[in-house]
Amino acid sequence: MPPITLLTDFGTADEYVGLMKGVILSINPAATIVDITHQLEPQDIVGAAHLIQSSYRYFPSGTVHLAIVDPGVGGDRKMICLKVYGHLFLAPDNGLLSLLLRDAPVDALHYIENTDLFLDPVSRTFHGRDVFAPVGAHLSLGVGIGEIGRAADRRSLVLLDLPKPRESTAGELVCDIIAIDRFGNLITNLDEGTLRRFHSSRQPGSVRFRVADRTIIGLSQGYSGVSENDLLAVIGSRGYLEIAVNTGDAHRLLGVEKGDRVRVAIGE
Amino acid sequence: MPPITLLTDFGTADEYVGLMKGVILSINPAATIVDITHQLEPQDIVGAAHLIQSSYRYFPSGTVHLAIVDPGVGGDRKMICLKVYGHLFLAPDNGLLSLLLRDAPVDALHYIENTDLFLDPVSRTFHGRDVFAPVGAHLSLGVGIGEIGRAADRRSLVLLDLPKPRESTAGELVCDIIAIDRFGNLITNLDEGTLRRFHSSRQPGSVRFRVADRTIIGLSQGYSGVSENDLLAVIGSRGYLEIAVNTGDAHRLLGVEKGDRVRVAIGE
Amino acid sequence: MPPITLLTDFGTADEYVGLMKGVILSINPAATIVDITHQLEPQDIVGAAHLIQSSYRYFPSGTVHLAIVDPGVGGDRKMICLKVYGHLFLAPDNGLLSLLLRDAPVDALHYIENTDLFLDPVSRTFHGRDVFAPVGAHLSLGVGIGEIGRAADRRSLVLLDLPKPRESTAGELVCDIIAIDRFGNLITNLDEGTLRRFHSSRQPGSVRFRVADRTIIGLSQGYSGVSENDLLAVIGSRGYLEIAVNTGDAHRLLGVEKGDRVRVAIGE
Repeated sequence: MPPITLLTDFGTADEYVGLMKGVILSINPAATIVDITHQLEPQDIVGAAHLIQSSYRYFPSGTVHLAIVDPGVGGDRKMICLKVYGHLFLAPDNGLLSLLLRDAPVDALHYIENTDLFLDPVSRTFHGRDVFAPVGAHLSLGVGIGEIGRAADRRSLVLLDLPKPRESTAGELVCDIIAIDRFGNLITNLDEGTLRRFHSSRQPGSVRFRVADRTIIGLSQGYSGVSENDLLAVIGSRGYLEIAVNTGDAHRLLGVEKGDRVRVAIGE
Repeated sequence: MPPITLLTDFGTADEYVGLMKGVILSINPAATIVDITHQLEPQDIVGAAHLIQSSYRYFPSGTVHLAIVDPGVGGDRKMICLKVYGHLFLAPDNGLLSLLLRDAPVDALHYIENTDLFLDPVSRTFHGRDVFAPVGAHLSLGVGIGEIGRAADRRSLVLLDLPKPRESTAGELVCDIIAIDRFGNLITNLDEGTLRRFHSSRQPGSVRFRVADRTIIGLSQGYSGVSENDLLAVIGSRGYLEIAVNTGDAHRLLGVEKGDRVRVAIGE
Repeated sequence: MPPITLLTDFGTADEYVGLMKGVILSINPAATIVDITHQLEPQDIVGAAHLIQSSYRYFPSGTVHLAIVDPGVGGDRKMICLKVYGHLFLAPDNGLLSLLLRDAPVDALHYIENTDLFLDPVSRTFHGRDVFAPVGAHLSLGVGIGEIGRAADRRSLVLLDLPKPRESTAGELVCDIIAIDRFGNLITNLDEGTLRRFHSSRQPGSVRFRVADRTIIGLSQGYSGVSENDLLAVIGSRGYLEIAVNTGDAHRLLGVEKGDRVRVAIGE
């Protein structure tokens, strides 16, 4: 039986995540539930969208992913269930699944509207517990995606227009810091393939990364590719460019934030 | 096999919760263990009592709930096991189960004193690991509540006198903020039924909520029932009155704290 | 099937721990995974070494423990798997297992180098996900330790020289604060046996503990062995001397930190 993952902005101090697990186990007592994170900043839909895209592939096919950052709960936003690459994603229709919908082939896409699968009553403020948890539990037991609601049209959904790496008029490749982890590593939206193609198209010369008035020359093969406390650029574990400090904290050193840019150039 | 829940003030930085799980799995290798929270403020028995009461119903009947906020550990406080509505609750006898004992019919109530079910030796400072975890694991395997100790008399237990909503001399319904969640929502002890009865008895007129010199008119049907960044009152997911801000943080906006009051009046 | 434990400095805000669990469940769908902590301070190898030693015995024999504090990830540090007392420990070879290697009989010790058991590709920055998680999952399924790599020689490993209690020239027993928990309890490296032997050798007289210019006379039998808000010394749940405050916070009261000393003397 595939696991159910949870990715929310609920934190772990309140009872909210525990109650979702109670509801899931009430329906599927054998469910395996995995927390991806509950520490997203409240209402950080963009951060969640990136995390959803980079995380799911490490789970077995068939996994049911509940992604709940839901400032519109109880209003008229819809709820959707998307199937891509054999994984099921349940989320409010507020852009959380934008990157999957942009980049992955849609196997199935349905609204979540079959109230027979919901808790009764449904509260106005906590659909994670009252809708997503029970529907996810039913899906993990083999209920078909067609049973949870009508098919949805991808074009009618809320899609975020998230920035991609782009070339500047100066010929640089410009990308964005999309996440900062516990170690202060700065994670960008520049994937390894795009970086390599840019480099190839500009040969010869070494690659340079500019961030916060600092320049890093060359891509390291790991954090320890430079001296301790030195800045480095590396392809991180998501497969994207990261700016880091060996045994240190790039976030603190550079004082940059999510949304700030990293510029890539090839030259002497 | 029903799950075992954990609700403590141990935090997650130390090893304490992990060790409880290790002890449980040593006795019941198939146990499903769910964290409700470990982030209660140290020694916050009142907050825990409210959380225990509002949480258990989302778990399947038969669930074993370990509730451990235990400043008197190693002293002469007793430990108890309470059965209500088919759920088992294990806790120190310090008031944690006060609301269950006040509001729910007691099916069984025993002291925890059968040392055959404890770890050996029992430390003086961590009965969560050495008493509650192993006894809970045995109960989850089907050991009867009668095997863990003598029957206890409800009247001999420590009971907290927790505030309830009450009418002021001015005819207002006065309630208390009992929890503040990650989103800054202010959760009160005023349940929906009591609010409706108060409103009915004062008809006609709309309901008004006063908190920190602000007045909120009417009950919203959800967070998005008002404009963004506006205050609202709503029946929250616990079934109790909450004061919130649409896509914002009522705690930060109002500067109130746990124990502060919300006053309800009906009028023009 | 024995559980798999995780002890890291990854925190819980990022996706790292969740991805390790996804990898484990992809290989062993029935795995039971327990978090010991992910809140070690980044790169705190010493704190992790103490925690590993004091935690494992509460898990069933056969448990697979993944211990990952790994500032050298992607460099030339090796990875090892140690078997002691029927438990398996996987860690980078950077001193994390120093206390086990110092104090416990080594049943088996191997390098982790069989790339058939790794994810493919292996990232340069996250061997927790790409090496430790899959190898741990295979071990939990019964793969033998001999299949993961060549036998290692204990003498070729990185061993930390961690301080032990020692006698000062003044005849005091000097020990070190090695951890401070959520409650502000100060946990030392002085085990109960060493303390009792020191006391016996200095009879008669009562034991005195000096820390931060305060003196505590006698060992308490629990936190409530003194008045509320008073300092006390107690054998804590790890089996080591702790300095605590009854219903209070010794860390805040005394202003000491990890690495500070506690001095024990016997006298009038």
